[in-house]
Amino acid sequence: MTTGAEAAARGIAEYLASQREVVDRALERLLPAGDEWPSVLHRAIRHSVFAGGKRLRPILCLAAADVFGAPPDDVLEPACGLEMIHTYSLIHDDLPAMDDDRLRRGQPTNHVVFGEGMAILAGDALLTEAFRIMTEAQRLKGINQKRVLQVVHIVAEAAGVLGMIAGQAADLESEGKEVDLPMVDFIHVRKTGALLLAAVRAGAILAEAKPAALRSLSRYGEYLGLCFQVVDDVLDAEGATEQTGKETGGDERRKKATYATVLGIPAARQRALELRDDALRALEGFGKRVEPLREIARSVVARL
Amino acid sequence: MTTGAEAAARGIAEYLASQREVVDRALERLLPAGDEWPSVLHRAIRHSVFAGGKRLRPILCLAAADVFGAPPDDVLEPACGLEMIHTYSLIHDDLPAMDDDRLRRGQPTNHVVFGEGMAILAGDALLTEAFRIMTEAQRLKGINQKRVLQVVHIVAEAAGVLGMIAGQAADLESEGKEVDLPMVDFIHVRKTGALLLAAVRAGAILAEAKPAALRSLSRYGEYLGLCFQVVDDVLDAEGATEQTGKETGGDERRKKATYATVLGIPAARQRALELRDDALRALEGFGKRVEPLREIARSVVARL
Repeated sequence: MTTGAEAAARGIAEYLASQREVVDRALERLLPAGDEWPSVLHRAIRHSVFAGGKRLRPILCLAAADVFGAPPDDVLEPACGLEMIHTYSLIHDDLPAMDDDRLRRGQPTNHVVFGEGMAILAGDALLTEAFRIMTEAQRLKGINQKRVLQVVHIVAEAAGVLGMIAGQAADLESEGKEVDLPMVDFIHVRKTGALLLAAVRAGAILAEAKPAALRSLSRYGEYLGLCFQVVDDVLDAEGATEQTGKETGGDERRKKATYATVLGIPAARQRALELRDDALRALEGFGKRVEPLREIARSVVARL
Repeated sequence: MTTGAEAAARGIAEYLASQREVVDRALERLLPAGDEWPSVLHRAIRHSVFAGGKRLRPILCLAAADVFGAPPDDVLEPACGLEMIHTYSLIHDDLPAMDDDRLRRGQPTNHVVFGEGMAILAGDALLTEAFRIMTEAQRLKGINQKRVLQVVHIVAEAAGVLGMIAGQAADLESEGKEVDLPMVDFIHVRKTGALLLAAVRAGAILAEAKPAALRSLSRYGEYLGLCFQVVDDVLDAEGATEQTGKETGGDERRKKATYATVLGIPAARQRALELRDDALRALEGFGKRVEPLREIARSVVARL
């Protein structure tokens, strides 16, 4: 585990790699082994959880908690819960009835390997286990239980019909239709932005951040989430399979609502840079401990 | 709202009908209206939530809380959360990749009306919203927050890879294979029993039941859950569409692991009666306030 100040000294790449290892070890410990029965379910879950994800959401949660000096152990389970919810959403989004993607992070998607029924169940399982793990009694000793309830609530809100699911439903509904910028905003703020924002907020809340600081970090999380999606849209449109690990051009093939199609690629790139700057501005006055959060914002745009 | 003592006087049918109305009104209030955007999502959610369910899980939760004198309002949101989780599991179980059922409670299943993608999302939404509603801040005033966390945890455990999802995955895995009684027990204890048990426990825990009383009610919940599933299997095998509202004979068609196929119908009927008696025995010594729980156990078997 690494503090913000150490990270600033050592460089962001090393910081991200070490935090990713921390998250991977925790996920390994929290998920049933692949040979537990029914083993096909657990192998399906592990196929997608350990498929080379960047662990951006848990790392954001850990980094936000570190800003207020909370020990990483107080935040690790909720951080992993966020990754499990993210993974569930990818498994279900990839299904034939949704985006029908056969490749994700360079590997065959869950239903391609395990069949649609088991992929649906693996997703359901990850969503459910996230809430089980966040409320595990033994990890709640000494932690403010009101804060834990608040975090469960904001995570459920971000993942639910006011957040991720509204975004995905609107996305599904608008396929093949003419869409405008407000609609693309509606979809992306919810589909991607809501859970990234919840990750930052969850870390800050568990670390007992004061209201004003929580507001600043929330602004950072909002801009970062949108920035991340704009970059993703541009990379898909430019066909950078190497960068995305997905079959690219899929958005255009399905006539998806994206920033690249609504704004055009040059303006979308410009928007990503502006959103990064907005995110950085939200962190002004926090000093060295927010350096990892700053570097994460910079690294998102560096993929362009 | 009705207390146990009043219910015993008025008869179980009236009690169940009045509690069902209480739950329906609460669900109506807690779920977004069908015209909120994206409206197709909310219509899909409402299609399955308001399809004539018996509300057995929320009623069990309310009845268990009433045993210990808790006001129904303290339990209503978690009770509705249980119904939302139950409904999500039905929507996903009915999908073509799972049981491929086109009829449920006498109505076309979710994916038949709204398409597979939206049905998957409607299920995901209900599972997520259940946890959001259980942790809503305004309803937690004055309620022991440790108990609320405990309830979120046992509900997630019952719905997750140790409970419902393990049962459904094992069910999917064992289709068309030779199964024995221990395997049928494994599947049904988890697939149906776990959430019924969690409903009873959630009510008792929120009502601050003492450990010994909680143990007795848990035993009741275990027997009741299994009894319920044995009855369901017998009704499916006997082809009682009228009773089940489903296309019957589906278990046999898909070579499902059921009590009817493993034990034969007469022995399965006998087992249901024994399980009812076990459930009633677990409630001995509780007096008049458990009368609704007793009557629920009797009414499950009365469907035979």
